[in-house]
Amino acid sequence: MNDLGLDKHQRFLQQAISIATENVNRGGGPYGAVIVKAGAVIAGSGNRVTDNLDPTAHAEVMTIRLACQALGDFQLDGCILYSSCEPCPMCLGAIYWARLDQVYFAANRFDAAHAGFDDSFIYNELDKPALQRRIRMQQLTMDDAGMPFNAWHANANKVRY
Amino acid sequence: MNDLGLDKHQRFLQQAISIATENVNRGGGPYGAVIVKAGAVIAGSGNRVTDNLDPTAHAEVMTIRLACQALGDFQLDGCILYSSCEPCPMCLGAIYWARLDQVYFAANRFDAAHAGFDDSFIYNELDKPALQRRIRMQQLTMDDAGMPFNAWHANANKVRY
Repeated sequence: MNDLGLDKHQRFLQQAISIATENVNRGGGPYGAVIVKAGAVIAGSGNRVTDNLDPTAHAEVMTIRLACQALGDFQLDGCILYSSCEPCPMCLGAIYWARLDQVYFAANRFDAAHAGFDDSFIYNELDKPALQRRIRMQQLTMDDAGMPFNAWHANANKVRY
Repeated sequence: MNDLGLDKHQRFLQQAISIATENVNRGGGPYGAVIVKAGAVIAGSGNRVTDNLDPTAHAEVMTIRLACQALGDFQLDGCILYSSCEPCPMCLGAIYWARLDQVYFAANRFDAAHAGFDDSFIYNELDKPALQRRIRMQQLTMDDAGMPFNAWHANANKVRY
């Protein structure tokens, strides 16, 4: 919950859109995001995939990383993400792992598909059984499959995340 | 397609499991991954979420980033990812954006849930309408929503990804 009026959310979303547009002019992808805590922007980024040679450097992922660095934490409780476009499945996963409070976005996955991006395609792939996906994903039986989790359970000093 | 026998896949998967187990002993999460190109490991990593203060630093994401740096590219055509556990939705998205050829994994999302991780929960959340998710996601109408994509279409020098 938060006490910001809708116009305030639109103001932050406008910042994300401006970052996205400027990012294209800098040679990057057409996406931008900001993260807000207690009414103040603590991080913002455009998409840096091609510049950073990092296919995970979507605007939302970059902004989550920057916000975590700013706060010195690996979680973002109490923070709101504003994105110029609906998060793709990768970014949606990142949003859950970061435990953000809420997300606002402007364009959606179909707008992204219209612009030539795979967001909608990847959402559809997620719903298929692993072996029927375009990228084949196969579980192999391994004697040691449980070993990492056993080590995790046995470690009294583990940092849960 | 590839010409490796199943035992070779299991050998690489065993490396991912060993990285995962060692990672726990180093204070990290119980996950590991390697990426193989033309029969050789080009990158490998454990989960670095708590060490790096980065909730996106799952083993698969870290390994994709490292492999891209090693190859000097933002895509990983011709590469196979081996992960100690079934990729979560974030990592699955990253796998599609990186355009890997194939994925092998040992443990699955239910093993991860049993160990206290949210993988299975996030898969379930993805299937819900945005407004019904635990983390509320809301599209707001913005006059400028299409501006970044318009800039992208107009940019003759864009690098597609």
